[in-house]
This record gives sequence, structure tokens and C-alpha cells, in this order.
Amino acid sequence: MNTNTYVYSFGAGESAGDASMKALLGGKGANLAEMAKLGLPVPPGFTLSTEVCTEFYNNNRAYPAELAAEVDAALAALESKTGKKFGDPANPLLVSVRSGSRASMPGMMDTVLNLGLNDDTVEGLATLSGDPRFAYDCYRRFIQMYSDVVLELEHGVFEEILGAHKDANEYKSDTELTAEDWKIVVDGYKRAAARELGRPFPSDPKEQLWGAIGAVFASWMNDRAVFYRKHNNIPESWGTAVNVQAMVFGNMGETSATGVAFTRDPSTGEKKFYGEFLINAQGEDVVAGIRTPRALTKAARLEMREQGLSLEEAMPDVFAELVAVYQKLEGHYRDMQDLEFTVERGKLYMLQTRNGKRTAKAALKIAVDMAGEGLITQDEAVLRVDASALDQLLHPTIEEGAVRDLICKGLPASPGAAVGIVVFDSEEAERLAADNVAVILVREETSPEDIHGMHAARAIVTARGGMTSHAAVVARGMGRPCVSGAGDIRIDMKAGEFRALGRAIKLGDTITVDGSSGEVLAGAAKMTEPELSGDFGALMEWADGARRMKVRANAETPADAATAVKFGAEGIGLCRTEHMFFDAERIAAVREMILADKEPTRIAALDKLFPHQRRDFAAIFKVMGARPVTIRLLDPPLHEFLPHTEEDCADVAKATGLDAKALLARSKELAESNPMLGFRGCRLAIVYPEIYDMQARAVFEAACDVAETGDAPIPEIMIPFVIAKKELDLLRARVDAVASEVFARRGRRIEYLVGTMIELPRAALKAGEIAEAADFFSFGTNDLTQTTMGLSRDDAGKFLGAYVERGVLERDPFVSVDAGGVGELVALACERGRKARPALKLGICGEHGGDPESIAFFEQAGLDYISCSPFRVPIARLAAAQAALSPRK
Amino acid sequence: MNTNTYVYSFGAGESAGDASMKALLGGKGANLAEMAKLGLPVPPGFTLSTEVCTEFYNNNRAYPAELAAEVDAALAALESKTGKKFGDPANPLLVSVRSGSRASMPGMMDTVLNLGLNDDTVEGLATLSGDPRFAYDCYRRFIQMYSDVVLELEHGVFEEILGAHKDANEYKSDTELTAEDWKIVVDGYKRAAARELGRPFPSDPKEQLWGAIGAVFASWMNDRAVFYRKHNNIPESWGTAVNVQAMVFGNMGETSATGVAFTRDPSTGEKKFYGEFLINAQGEDVVAGIRTPRALTKAARLEMREQGLSLEEAMPDVFAELVAVYQKLEGHYRDMQDLEFTVERGKLYMLQTRNGKRTAKAALKIAVDMAGEGLITQDEAVLRVDASALDQLLHPTIEEGAVRDLICKGLPASPGAAVGIVVFDSEEAERLAADNVAVILVREETSPEDIHGMHAARAIVTARGGMTSHAAVVARGMGRPCVSGAGDIRIDMKAGEFRALGRAIKLGDTITVDGSSGEVLAGAAKMTEPELSGDFGALMEWADGARRMKVRANAETPADAATAVKFGAEGIGLCRTEHMFFDAERIAAVREMILADKEPTRIAALDKLFPHQRRDFAAIFKVMGARPVTIRLLDPPLHEFLPHTEEDCADVAKATGLDAKALLARSKELAESNPMLGFRGCRLAIVYPEIYDMQARAVFEAACDVAETGDAPIPEIMIPFVIAKKELDLLRARVDAVASEVFARRGRRIEYLVGTMIELPRAALKAGEIAEAADFFSFGTNDLTQTTMGLSRDDAGKFLGAYVERGVLERDPFVSVDAGGVGELVALACERGRKARPALKLGICGEHGGDPESIAFFEQAGLDYISCSPFRVPIARLAAAQAALSPRK
Repeated sequence: MNTNTYVYSFGAGESAGDASMKALLGGKGANLAEMAKLGLPVPPGFTLSTEVCTEFYNNNRAYPAELAAEVDAALAALESKTGKKFGDPANPLLVSVRSGSRASMPGMMDTVLNLGLNDDTVEGLATLSGDPRFAYDCYRRFIQMYSDVVLELEHGVFEEILGAHKDANEYKSDTELTAEDWKIVVDGYKRAAARELGRPFPSDPKEQLWGAIGAVFASWMNDRAVFYRKHNNIPESWGTAVNVQAMVFGNMGETSATGVAFTRDPSTGEKKFYGEFLINAQGEDVVAGIRTPRALTKAARLEMREQGLSLEEAMPDVFAELVAVYQKLEGHYRDMQDLEFTVERGKLYMLQTRNGKRTAKAALKIAVDMAGEGLITQDEAVLRVDASALDQLLHPTIEEGAVRDLICKGLPASPGAAVGIVVFDSEEAERLAADNVAVILVREETSPEDIHGMHAARAIVTARGGMTSHAAVVARGMGRPCVSGAGDIRIDMKAGEFRALGRAIKLGDTITVDGSSGEVLAGAAKMTEPELSGDFGALMEWADGARRMKVRANAETPADAATAVKFGAEGIGLCRTEHMFFDAERIAAVREMILADKEPTRIAALDKLFPHQRRDFAAIFKVMGARPVTIRLLDPPLHEFLPHTEEDCADVAKATGLDAKALLARSKELAESNPMLGFRGCRLAIVYPEIYDMQARAVFEAACDVAETGDAPIPEIMIPFVIAKKELDLLRARVDAVASEVFARRGRRIEYLVGTMIELPRAALKAGEIAEAADFFSFGTNDLTQTTMGLSRDDAGKFLGAYVERGVLERDPFVSVDAGGVGELVALACERGRKARPALKLGICGEHGGDPESIAFFEQAGLDYISCSPFRVPIARLAAAQAALSPRK
Repeated sequence: MNTNTYVYSFGAGESAGDASMKALLGGKGANLAEMAKLGLPVPPGFTLSTEVCTEFYNNNRAYPAELAAEVDAALAALESKTGKKFGDPANPLLVSVRSGSRASMPGMMDTVLNLGLNDDTVEGLATLSGDPRFAYDCYRRFIQMYSDVVLELEHGVFEEILGAHKDANEYKSDTELTAEDWKIVVDGYKRAAARELGRPFPSDPKEQLWGAIGAVFASWMNDRAVFYRKHNNIPESWGTAVNVQAMVFGNMGETSATGVAFTRDPSTGEKKFYGEFLINAQGEDVVAGIRTPRALTKAARLEMREQGLSLEEAMPDVFAELVAVYQKLEGHYRDMQDLEFTVERGKLYMLQTRNGKRTAKAALKIAVDMAGEGLITQDEAVLRVDASALDQLLHPTIEEGAVRDLICKGLPASPGAAVGIVVFDSEEAERLAADNVAVILVREETSPEDIHGMHAARAIVTARGGMTSHAAVVARGMGRPCVSGAGDIRIDMKAGEFRALGRAIKLGDTITVDGSSGEVLAGAAKMTEPELSGDFGALMEWADGARRMKVRANAETPADAATAVKFGAEGIGLCRTEHMFFDAERIAAVREMILADKEPTRIAALDKLFPHQRRDFAAIFKVMGARPVTIRLLDPPLHEFLPHTEEDCADVAKATGLDAKALLARSKELAESNPMLGFRGCRLAIVYPEIYDMQARAVFEAACDVAETGDAPIPEIMIPFVIAKKELDLLRARVDAVASEVFARRGRRIEYLVGTMIELPRAALKAGEIAEAADFFSFGTNDLTQTTMGLSRDDAGKFLGAYVERGVLERDPFVSVDAGGVGELVALACERGRKARPALKLGICGEHGGDPESIAFFEQAGLDYISCSPFRVPIARLAAAQAALSPRK
């Protein structure tokens, strides 16, 4: 029915557009058209499409030539539908002019109501409504709004005029003003506007209309809107539409009203009609919060012990119609709706519908309920829940409304909340935790030596470090709440306290850490334990049915492994072995090994480590049963295991009997300018093959041990930091030799794989050759991101913020994988690897394995599994399902 | 004529093979076949091809089934050609069995001579030669050689037997032994061999032959050969051939002789027949050096004041024939030949010809001469000279035969030699050099602050650091000889000396540095200044005519720029701007700028730097005239400009008036875990755009200044460390704005380009997008290698040696570009860049720009230019020509 290019009419049961045309008509315009099509009572109107906006900006803020004629035609149609005429003093048509973009940008752009009023039409409105006070109230609202939005006049002037008039008459509230009062105020407004403008306030409704349309388009580029788009990744090129709609009035007396409603409870997801309304008010009044709105339903009124009648009681017919509308809309849109309505003298009008925002808890319940009701499929239910938001459901949180005595804020580095007493030292954390004391570890920053202290603590706070600092990464891995980079904290170890924003917190004081918000609070805040409802189980089951990729966890202790299994992990994708080296019993032998200048001495030191590693692996294998366990052989540069300062070397020497001078000398010798690109990973084993020999022996002996009484473990031995096939050839041959030797001696064969990490660009490029020697690839996307982008994760904090802010990078590439750059290497390595070895198993074990956006990319790349920290396994399961259900790009 | 598969006969004017079949017959076999074909007097024989070797190793050391029959047939043909019979006591055929692979591997594999002798045939040989002593001497040589090579017996036993016999007879020299004596010795040898073997020494010639063939093939895999191949990049798969050839005897009395000859002088290249010979000797004797060989020509004899007659005088007919042969061979092979010949009783036999090895100087002269003679084309002449070897011609060297009093050895980090007095401090080096004192800077290692001291010094020695350490890279850039990583050196600043290998060298002592060999010598060694002959000029001119790629230099001072122009640079490919910041006058302002916490303070500090930068650029533009100058805007992380320790900060504070605490705090704040991947390059300018603004203004103002009185400069502004187009968009816009502003004010337009370095994998991957904003790409292959391979140049020394040794990497990827990995990214970036912008200018400015092997790769990748340090420009010009002349891979 639409022959226009730029303008789409709606209303009176028919529309040129529909809900599928959000890109062209914006969300509001498309849904108004859809509702009108459904026969719902929508005030008629028309939408200027987003293309007008795009052309407006492409053509130096000029409208397309056809626009004026199309608007005239649409206006004429609107007049005929309403039976009113624009600017007609006898029966004036009034309209609202509102923005409406493809994505919701609440409050960012401009709106003008009651447009079409002037000294003549206001009289017509007074006559028609029989309420001159209402008419002049509308008129003064219009002048005020138009002056602000379109004419950009100082609104202080208008407030002064109104204030002066109220003072002169000793009125306290606007409601005391009579029609005559408003007339006087309106005169004052017009004079003030003329003075500021240097010409009279525009009285021609057409001029008013074009002014408002221009202002709405211009507001697309106002600072607020630009900022909001940047932070919400909304492309500028989308543009906004403009909706021109016949006014209806909720402020025409006691039989008029305006309100908002949700078809289900947006905070709990409960299936009950939920909302608020105000009698004798315009929509803006509900939002403004000047009057307290009332509940829609009687049940809600009773529950909340409100005095005023509910809509259900006050206007039962309107309520019944509204219920029918909501049921129709929810059924039609197959999702919970957020509605806006107005009642004008007992007649219901629908002004907006859209999918309602909701809490994670509500999203889960609504999705599962709707699938149960047969409204949506189980797959659709899986797609309805934001995977990232599951975090909120999996961790203890601070009770809503609990008192929050803020000490300082840092980064929300690992979600969940915890209460405990402050300690500054990992040993002390461990000691106290052994006596069941809840402790919070507060540190300048953490290092691998703090692992045990972090495990012992209920939460971790660091003064330095970003979202991907050591503390943040390890805490997420362990599922401990963590606030990192709380820059205001100054720790004074001598005084046994930390200070932040002028306040001192002593060792032993109780604090609360909210890792989801980044807040550190004084005292013990009230906590809510997470409740995993049956809905959660149902949704995860549907997700597991829908996903293609397996989900594993990164775990290196039996406890982590058990958590992983509890959350549904199907294996371990990354068992780092270096943290095992830091245990107090072992670190001495590790250092002996590093100090050894001859192979036999080195082997003797490794022999001391062997029984420990064997026990480590056996314990993990026992937990994991017949699930695969990917064990990464030693990766970090050796200097990470040595003390660095003269003082520390002396301490270590005293404690271990090692030579302080030798320690310092070796530490200096091994020091590196860029340890990230240094002597680490398989490079260590090319030079000192005996290290991996020991680790491989420990893996196979442990596997044989466990297989004697239970499931045979499935070890997948992973060689890190490979750049050439030859490295893998050499090291794989040694692993295989160790395996043969152990199996022969134990009289038992264990199935195992040997593979590699693809974490350097060269490895990705050479994936075809490397695959010839590898049973599997596991993408180490952290290191691959560091090297591909030349970004040191530890250092990038200095500029990454500016990079995202200025739009150089869309987001932090350590959080969501850089699909265009790093991702190309991942895809290329998959392709080359699979070409060389079709059965090649492909996985990913970087931090990205728990990020839904990255998971969508990995699904496209065709990986077999993703691996993430145990607490993110449910998120990964859901995200993997959503990725599998989404159309391929 | 050859119907065989594995065996190729030659001799008597016809051959189954020829010189083109080196891959199949090895160098020696192919050239023997070719000489026989040419009708030259070659003792007949046959060659077992390299395919036998390959199949031998592929089939578990078994020969192809057809081989025995083919050898029998070839042997029969050999018997008929020589008229002798294998094992015939009356007229025995004796043969040599020698290895011969595609590439020359001198002395690496085994040889057996005089094969076919036993107790019967030795008598025949005695009768035929009329010289029993000769016959038994041959026999004992054979037994000794065969026992060693084939039977792998202890050769000490034989030496003992001979020694005992000589002692018993009081002989001092082997020449005193008679035929009877040798007979006794031979008996002793055979008994000893039988005792060791547990069976008699093999007397069947066929058995001997197969034993020798097997030993030669086996020697392909001996440790020496394997090691040699690895170090010379010879693939194992090539295999060796085996040459079986009728023996001729240079030791049959005074009319017999053996010798080697070169068709031109291999050390000077002079066109004169050159060589040595021995009367009455076997070839091995010339090589062994027991007797002193004589000159071939009378002229040489006179020149060297030798007593014995030259071959020309002693055997004029043979000499004349040899001259004819050499002329024929040089004409045929169109290159200088290295010949082996034997004269048996007045008859000349040719045993080998091959292209002769030569010094760089000789290579140059021979190539230019031969082109002049019309023997080869100018293009061929260009291809004949090893580009890397030009280094020898461009730098002063220590005189051949000069006394070398070695203090210690390090790495040959930058070629050439220099004499000077030892200083340990850059300031002192500068001070003394200002008084024209020749100084050698000896440091633990160097840092950017030493640049001026390095410039002042004649040579640099460092105790630490590899071939690509700061010292090495900067020294090569400046053309200063440098020995890096001289690990034996211990500098004792307090004592004012360094110690190495037990010896103390004091401050002010004179030493000589040989950067080509890595040697540090005590005292002033005698030096030879480089002489650039007209030949050099001619060759470079031909090279310039043949090459496609332009050659630029990396230079950042007017002096370097002048050197670059002198050596033929066509522009500057990399003018770093950071070194300019270290000048004493400027560093204070640089530090002020870094300490500034607000933009205006930062701009004020930058304003102080501006006039210096403007002068810097103007001076360079003046030297370069209308040649393009690529200026890289500030690249290193800011902490490189700050002092790091508390002590240093205090010093700087005292000297500059800056606040010591603030310095230390800022230094700590800016410190990075991995500065290579840190806050550097264009990242600095995204956060602090005013830095690049100042630099761009200095460039354009300087260009306008210079253009007023001379050629208009062609600045090419290069933005480093880009990973996304948006960086370039933002920064390019600012550069363009500065340019417009300057040009408008100065009333002058300067043509300029804005481009970027491709030095991170993401930049290479995103080259298509980036090219939209870039006029040129310059590949920073140093950083690209670091990130693609995950190798920190400063740290990789710890394992890179082991990596090359174990064959993980073919060579140091910082010396020759890793074509398979890093190279793929270069090629891909070229392709994507050119697709997006066909006119995109492509260059390379990493260290690889001066490496011939890398240059060949860049030619294939289609770069427009290469840029290298000024002293390597001639090498790059020649290598670029060779690359252009070589067939595309």
C-alpha cells in the first residue's frame, strides 16, 4: 500500500510497514506499524525512515527532494483518518514527533509533544475538550519543549516566568494554576522566546513540524547519542527514524490515564501482568517520577499495600482491553513485551511495544516457561538467555538493597562477592584458612608465588593490574571474586593496614568484596547465595542438546577439576604444570634444577620433582575419570622460579641451603628484556630435554597407577610455544619413547595424544607442516593475541582504554578475540591443519574460551572444543549452543 | 649411449654423462664425463649415480638389484678401454674409488686409491712399471688406506709397524726404504690387518671394489659429513655418487708428476696460469704438504725465487698440452677452473676440473675481465660475484700475514678492522675523538645513550650481546667494526682495565679490533686500506642496469646520509628520529615532556625540541637533495629516555633541575614487562598526539627551508607500529593538517607521502584496509620476525644457537628473513596492499635489507625498494641485481 520512498503511514488497522522493518523504520516505528496492522488501538501517524537520516547526513544536512511532498501526503492521510485538520482552529490535529532508531537508545534523542498548537488552535482544543485549563497546560508544555529542543533556548527563562507567577499568586504547586493563569504564563513564554529568537515564536504548525523533524534528525549526532552509540557498538550509519503521530491525551481528566506495563515480571520472570499507571497524566509524567504511579492489578496493589485503586479496579473495561492486548502482543511477538499506553476519556490507545529488558534470572525463567507453554521452541529458549549474564546466577552476590559502605572501587575482575578478614600475605592467608577463617587477600599485585594464598582466600583485591592481570586471570580460573586495579589502595605492610580515600583498614578487619561491580566495602555486607533452579538445569540440558562443540575446563588441581565436572565440563582443556612447581616442598628442587650446570645434576633435581608431579597427575586423573585431560608441559621462562633481588636471593639461600651468589648470578643470566618472547615453552625442552622427559614419565606413570583401580585416563600431552614442525618432531619422539618405556615396564598401554599449542603467528602459518606431527592443536589465543597484535597483556593497560575509546579497536582483544586479525590466523591454521591431517582435533584454551562472542567465532572456525575456567563452563555451554543455533556468517 | 640406470661410463672420448648432470653424477663425475667428451685425456672409468645412494639409504642400506650387473658391465668396458684386466697378475687394472656429491664437500667423505692390488697383481705392476719399489709402495698405501676407510681398523698399528721397521734399519725418511723393505712392511701390515679382522686381508679385487663402494656411500652419513652439510645447507637427500676410475701414476719416476692448477690467480684474479706440481708423486702428496711443490710457470718460479725447475721448463711438451687444456676448459666452462692433473711417464692425464674458489677481490676481477674478454655477458659477471663477500672490499682489513696477538674472541658483529686506544665510557670516547685520538669503545653492552660514543669510536667491543644486539646493529649501521659478545672480557671500571683470558688491558692501551673475524688483538696490527678498483665501479654499474628494486639506506645523521649517497643509495629508507632525542642538549626537554602530566606542559617541552628536529631534518634533506627520505616518527617506549635506578635519577635531577622523585616514579610507572610489545610507536601518538604534531611540523618546516635554496626534499613520513587502519586515519589526518598549516604559512607546497611500517602480524593481515590510508608500506622485518616467531631479539641468544644446530631453524631469522613464515606475511601484505591501492609503494627497512638471501626473497615478493645500512648499500645493489637476474621461483 505504500508507494512512498521515505514516509510510511500507519494506523486505523493498516500500515505501510511492519515489525520486520526495524532497520528502515526504527524499533518504535516498526512496532507501531505492526500493532496497527494487528488491529490494536494505535493513534495513527507516519514514520520518516532512517534513510532520510542517512541521506540528510550524506548530503550536508539537506533532505531528499521528494520528502516534502511525501510528508504532505502522509499528513493529509492522517487528517482524514483522525477527521482533524492541522492548524484548524475548529478541530485541530495535534501530533507528537519522536525519534526511533533500530537499536533502543533510551533518552538519547529528542521528542516534541503537543505540536500544532498556537493561539488559535489552543482555543479549538479548549472548546473540543471542554477544558480550557487542559488546553493551555498543553500549550505551555509545547512552547517549553519546542523552545528547548528545536529552538535551543535557555530553559531557565521559562522556569523563572512560571516561578514568578506562582510566587505572585502564592501558589505552591502547578495544579493550583487555573486556565487563566496558564494563559498569562503562555504569554510570558512567547514574549521571552521572541526576545531570545529576535522573531516571534513560530505559530505555523507546518513550520513547527519541520522544525521538530529537523531537531530529531540533528539529535542523532548530539554528544550524548554519539557517546551512547560508541559504548554500545551501534553504527553511526544506522541513523534514526522520525515518528509523527496524532496526539492522544492521558491528561484529559479523571477518565484519562497513562502507563507502562510488562507482560511478565522483568525482575523475577514470573508470569504475571506487571506495570504502573497515572490517572490524568501525560506519558512523560510517569517517567519523570513527580507523582507516584499506581499498580495495574488489584493483586499487586494489595501486595504492595497501596491506597489508590489499581487500573483493574478504577477502569475495569480499559484494564480488560489492555489484558487482551498484552496477551495478543506476547503471543504475536513470542516474547515478553514492554508496553506504553494512554487512556483518553476511557478509550485505550497503545503507544509502544517492544521486547522488555529483564534480569538474568527473569530471562532464564521466561525462556524456560515460554518453551513450556509451547510459545517458543527449546532452541529459541536457548537463544533467549544472554550467556554472559549467567555469571550473576552462579556466584554469591550482595543482597539487593544491602547497605554498602564503600571503601574504594577497582575493576570487576572476577564475579561474585565474599566476606572475610583482611590479610596482606599469602602464607598468612593459607595459615588462617587452614583454621577455617574466611580471609580476603589484599595485595599490591599477585605473582605465581601467591597461587596458594589465592586459593586459600575467599576473594582477592589488588591495587594494580587490569582485567587480565595475573590476579584477575587466576581468580577467574579459581572462581574467586576479585577486584583488581583498585588504584586508590596504598598498602602499608609495616603499619599492617591499607589506606584508601583517606580511610585506614587494618589487618584483620572484615571487608566485603564485590567482584561483579569492582567494589570493596567495609564490614560484612548481607549476602545472597546463588540458587540454581530447575529452570537452569532444563536450559543447560537443551543447550547441551543443541551445541556441536565440546566444553572443557582449564584446571590444574583436583578441586578445580571437581568444580569443572560439577559445572558440566567434558574434559580438561588446559592443565598447566608450572603452578605445581611453586609448592613450598617443590620450589627448592625446581631451583636446584635451574642452577644445575650439568645434565646429571639437573636430572637429579628433576628426580626429586618426579614423585610430586606423578601424584599431581594421578589426583587429577582420578577426578576426571575417562574424560580427556590436556596437560601442558612446562611453559614459563625459568627465571620466573628464581628470586630476583639480592635480598630475596639471600632469603632463599638461607631457607634452602642453595648458594645466594649462584642464585643471583643465574637469575641475572636468565633475566629477559621481553620474557613473553623469550626462552620458554618447548624452547626449554629443546635445550634441556630432561625436563619434559620427567613430566612425560610422571604423566604416564600416574595414568598407569590410576588405570589399575578405575577408568583409564586419557592424557593429551601438549607441547607449548611451537614455531616449527621440527620442534614437535624432536620432543614428540622423546615423549613417545618415555611412554613406550613406562608401558613396557608396567605391562599396560594407555591411549594418549601428543599435540601442540598454536599460540604464535608462525605456528598458525606453518600449521600444515606442524599438523603432520600433532594429534591436536589447542589455540593459545592469549599469546596469539599478544604476538599478532604486538600487545603485551601486562603492559597494554596504558593505552588500551584510549584505543577502545577512540575506536581504534572495537573492544579489548584479550576479552573478545580479535576476529578480523587474530581470528584469521586461527581460521587459517584450522584449514591448513585439517588439510594435512583430517582427524586433527582442534580446541582453544585461552581466556577467550569463556567469552560468548569469541565462542561464536570459534564455532564458525570449526573448532572441536573450547576450554575455559571451571566457573565459566555453564556460560560456555550455553554460548556454544547459541553459536551452533545461529546462522553461519 | 647409456642404457644403464645407475652406472655411467666415461673416457676415451665418449661419456654417458656430461657437466649438466651434477645432480645425478656429482660434481666430479659430471666434469670427468664432460672432459672425456671434450676429448681431453681423462683416465677412463664409471660413476655410480647419487640415486644409488638415495636408494641405498631408503632401503635399509641395500643396493638396487640391477646394480651388480651394471657395475660388472662397466668394469668390462673399462678393461677393454684400458687393455688391462682387474686382478690379472700379468696386466692388472688398478682403480681409484672416490666420492663426489652435487656440492663440493672437501675431505668430508672417503677415497680409496690403488685398488686391485694383491700379492699377485703387485708383482705384475712391478714388472710392468719396471719399478718394484713403486709397486710395493703402492701396495702398502692401498692396504693402509683400505684398512682405514673400508675395514675401519686402528691406523696406529700400521704406523707402529712402519716406525719399528725404520728404527731397526735406522732410516729417517720413507724415501730410504727399498722395494724389499716395503715388502717386509706389507707383510707386517697384512698380518696386523688379519689379526684385527679375524680373517685375511681381502685379496679379491672384486671384493675390494664392493668394499670401497660401500665405504664411500656409508661415508655420506659419517659425523663429519652430516655436520658439514648442516652448516652448508646441503640437503641429505642429495646423496653422493661414487667414481671408479683407472689409476694413473704420478709416482712412476722422474718423468711422472702430479699437480693442481688454476686458470687464473685465485687470490688476485689476475689472468695468469697458476699452480703447483710435484715430480714423482701421487696427488695426495701435493695436498699433504710433506714435500714443497714447485711453480708451474717459469715466470712464477722466478718471481718466487724457487730453485727447482718449473713444469714449463722441466716438461715443456706436457706444459704446452696443459696450457691448451686449460684454455679449452676455461673457454668451455666460461669460468676460472681449478684443475688436477697427473703425468705418468710423460703422458698428461686430467683428473678433475671444477670452477675454482677465489677471494672476493679475485671474483670481482675475473668476472669483469671475462666480461671484457667477451667470455661471459655483463649480466653473468654480475651473477658471478658473491654479494656478501663485497664487505671484504669495502672495509680496512688486517694485512695478510700480520702478527696477531690475540686477546680474546667474540662475534664478528660488524666487518672491518681498526686500531685505537681503549676507553670504557662514551663521553670519554667523544672527548678524545674530538682531539683526533683514535679510540676503541669497550663496554659490557651498549644502549641508545652510547650512540655518540659509538660514533666517535673507530670500533666497538662488547662483552655481551649477539649478532643483533644494540651494539652490533648500530655499529653495522655506522660502518664501525664491532666485536660483540666477547664473553671472556671482564671490565673493571675501578681499576681502569679489562681482563680477558688472564691478561689485563688498561685504559689507554692500544688494541686492534677485527670485526670480520671477531678477534680482539693487542697492539696495532698492520692494516690494509680498501682499494675500490675500476672493476668495482664497472660491476656496480652493470648491477644497477640489471636490478629492478631501488636501494636506499638507513641513515639518521648528515654524515651517514653522505656515506649512503657515496655508496650509491637512491634515498633514505629509514631515518629514525629517536636517536636525535638523546643528544645532551635535548634529552632534558625529552624528559620534561615525558614527566608532563598535562598537555600544555607537554607541548611546552616539545616546543623546545622543535628547533633541534627542524635543524636535523634540514641537514639531512640538504645532503639527500631530490632523493626521497623516509622519516619514521618516534617509535620506542618513553621509558627508554628515562633513568631507571634511584641513583641515576638523582644524577639526572642534579644535572637538569628535574625532580628526582618524579623521575623515578614516572620511570617505574612507564616500566614494562615486555617493552617490545608495549606502549610505543603510533600508540604514543594516539595517546599524546602532540608528539607527532611537533615532528611533522619540524619535517615540513625543514623541507620548506631547504627548498628555498635547493632541491625540494621528498619527505616520506612513516607511522610505526600500526595494527589497524584507524590509527593511520587518525594520525595521517593530523600530519596532513600540520602540512597544510605550514604550507599555507610558508606559501610553498612540498610533495610528501604518508605511510606506515608493516611490522606486526596484524598489520600484515589487515594490509588491505591499512593500504587505503597509506601511500607506502615499509616492512619492519626485525619486529615482524620477533612477533611472528615469538622471538625477542635481545633474548633469543640463549637458545637460537641450539635451534640452528638441531635443525629446528635453518638459520638465524634475524640475519636472513624466515621466508616460509615471516615471508608469507610479507607476501600476503604486498598482495592485499596492492589490491587495495595499486600504486602502493613497497619497501623494507629492517636489517634484512642488507642480506643477499633476504634480498632475493624481497625481489620475488615484488618490493619496490630495499633499505640497509650505508656500508651495505653496494652489497644490496649487487644482490638486488642478482635477484632480478635469477629465475623466479
